[in-house]
Amino acid sequence: MSSVKLLSDDELSPAARAVFDDIRATRQNDFVNNFWRALAHDPIQLERVWNQVKQVMGAGALDPLTKELIYVAISVANNCEYCIGSHTAAARAKGMSEAQYHELLNVIALASQTNKLATALRVPLDARFAEPPEG
Amino acid sequence: MSSVKLLSDDELSPAARAVFDDIRATRQNDFVNNFWRALAHDPIQLERVWNQVKQVMGAGALDPLTKELIYVAISVANNCEYCIGSHTAAARAKGMSEAQYHELLNVIALASQTNKLATALRVPLDARFAEPPEG
Amino acid sequence: MSSVKLLSDDELSPAARAVFDDIRATRQNDFVNNFWRALAHDPIQLERVWNQVKQVMGAGALDPLTKELIYVAISVANNCEYCIGSHTAAARAKGMSEAQYHELLNVIALASQTNKLATALRVPLDARFAEPPEG
Amino acid sequence: MSSVKLLSDDELSPAARAVFDDIRATRQNDFVNNFWRALAHDPIQLERVWNQVKQVMGAGALDPLTKELIYVAISVANNCEYCIGSHTAAARAKGMSEAQYHELLNVIALASQTNKLATALRVPLDARFAEPPEG
Amino acid sequence: MSSVKLLSDDELSPAARAVFDDIRATRQNDFVNNFWRALAHDPIQLERVWNQVKQVMGAGALDPLTKELIYVAISVANNCEYCIGSHTAAARAKGMSEAQYHELLNVIALASQTNKLATALRVPLDARFAEPPEG
Amino acid sequence: MSSVKLLSDDELSPAARAVFDDIRATRQNDFVNNFWRALAHDPIQLERVWNQVKQVMGAGALDPLTKELIYVAISVANNCEYCIGSHTAAARAKGMSEAQYHELLNVIALASQTNKLATALRVPLDARFAEPPEG
Repeated sequence: MSSVKLLSDDELSPAARAVFDDIRATRQNDFVNNFWRALAHDPIQLERVWNQVKQVMGAGALDPLTKELIYVAISVANNCEYCIGSHTAAARAKGMSEAQYHELLNVIALASQTNKLATALRVPLDARFAEPPEG
Repeated sequence: MSSVKLLSDDELSPAARAVFDDIRATRQNDFVNNFWRALAHDPIQLERVWNQVKQVMGAGALDPLTKELIYVAISVANNCEYCIGSHTAAARAKGMSEAQYHELLNVIALASQTNKLATALRVPLDARFAEPPEG
Repeated sequence: MSSVKLLSDDELSPAARAVFDDIRATRQNDFVNNFWRALAHDPIQLERVWNQVKQVMGAGALDPLTKELIYVAISVANNCEYCIGSHTAAARAKGMSEAQYHELLNVIALASQTNKLATALRVPLDARFAEPPEG
Repeated sequence: MSSVKLLSDDELSPAARAVFDDIRATRQNDFVNNFWRALAHDPIQLERVWNQVKQVMGAGALDPLTKELIYVAISVANNCEYCIGSHTAAARAKGMSEAQYHELLNVIALASQTNKLATALRVPLDARFAEPPEG
Repeated sequence: MSSVKLLSDDELSPAARAVFDDIRATRQNDFVNNFWRALAHDPIQLERVWNQVKQVMGAGALDPLTKELIYVAISVANNCEYCIGSHTAAARAKGMSEAQYHELLNVIALASQTNKLATALRVPLDARFAEPPEG
Repeated sequence: MSSVKLLSDDELSPAARAVFDDIRATRQNDFVNNFWRALAHDPIQLERVWNQVKQVMGAGALDPLTKELIYVAISVANNCEYCIGSHTAAARAKGMSEAQYHELLNVIALASQTNKLATALRVPLDARFAEPPEG
């Protein structure tokens, strides 16, 4: 069903196992989802992607739930069924209410529509939006 | 440069003018950007899209800035240059800091990458993510 | 299997039930497909989308079958499997012949190909195509 | 501005010139647009694409204007600015009224929106839409 | 499950059968995959697509495996699950090692990420990249 | 014109300057293109993306030109004009002949077409392509 075998824990290379250990420790959860089991055939990429997830998705100027909503939005726009399923679940696990979920869908639906109208009409960008801010 | 003429205020039909009046009153700003000037050839669609914007983008379970970040994210995923330019400006006008902007870009970049890995590897969705929540 | 529970008729809120009644009356058909059962968790969006469908997809300057063909084309370009399945069926129900279906596929295949050639070659738009028509 | 030089008539190879002659004869118009001038570096592809355009876009079970509307729809969904500009012009040249153009935009906007809702909600295809027709 | 019935060998029209014969002779393999069985309802398109595959995917300035890797990359970017599955298998059949496969995934992941950063930031193309080469 | 100011060398933070130094040393070229000048506002992302480029795009199981061709293919599929321009130039700088470039375009055009046919027809993946290889 997948393009590579999903590796079970006892099929991992030592390098991949070290990343899985960090995933479990960071999430404080023994469950490791299929995405990482597919990526584990390439431990260097596995480690790079996991490190990027850790750096990007934690708290910062944006809170973790806001980041998760953005992640779902991109996954919907990119039609990634796996990512929509897993990140919608992650957003709920981080506290997304059903009201927030429906507002997220409302924004996705609106933007998907206006994006295509602006593109079809080839609307030129207003001068005031074209320039970057100072500094 | 555009697929239709951008209508100036004195070229609007009465129905389109009424929508422009509402845009100005709602935003408390006399400026009406090019998107609406292109859409104004079709007053029924103009009114429907504007009403949807008003319903969706205001405060609710998600705050207006979070919605604007999601809007930018979708616009980037959809490659709508007009929308990226205008909604990045709108997000800044609603208080997006440059630190928040860079975190938004970080999430977009991460999700765009992992979306394609999950798609390429045809990773099956974990059973626990597949089912909708109760109720 | 879906991100929300598909609501059966007896799980609908009164607001959602009113929209379902209108769907059934408009289509003169008791069957309500899964798309609306998923959307029914958010009655405001359900009503807005259904009203838009009614306004847009009826007869006008373009006939309903032509609109359905365009709908299928967009759904294919956007990779929406649900929409491809349901709107291909809708087009057949509105009278699309298999010969018409194959011509639709021929145009989709041709445009998908030439779109990418023009994009890859970064072909500048000919001056005569760049300007909107008068009036 | 483009990724290859746009070839003028006196820079064409004999094989490319023969295709240009056929474009002019078929269209009964001396103008050859930039797309073909970019493609002319590869006469085999030039001929193959042109022959496909001739086979697909003529009258058949669908009329040429309907095909042009579908072409515009795909080009919008694919964000091909060149193709949107040139095929919107082509549709107008084939008789598309402004009312038809706006209805086309209405369908594109609607489908772009519902496509993303169905994708985000991971709506399963109704059994009655899943099976191909008999024969 | 598909939008048209997948035709078995004894359901083919004579024109479609001739194409299937050529597919089998060219590939020196009796197996004909589902893509062609779906396309066989339209023998003219079937023949045109098959001829294009034969012309494009053979050895030339690029070797067949490199072309297959590019084919997988496009299929991933376009989210075509059928094409990802069949062309990943084809690449392996043409000798793609698992190390090569993982490097392909690394490039796809990197480009998908940087594409969206450049788009989000609306980076203007450097003058030295904008012009086509001489000749 | 861009969403952020493109930073000149004397506007760089020390962290961003260190990355620019490494870009120049690695490429043995003083020129730093606009993509990095836009990204330099976020030195952590700048460094992460540049390190990924160094890890992924060098020689390995695939040669650098093949990787660059795949990069162009993804950029075309994603409609990133900046990336198409800069990576087409990069591919030429790495030795891509015009014959190779045209074959790349041929594969992109073919795959973009067949992807959409398989998607439109909802072709089920053949059993023999569905399973991952052993090991």
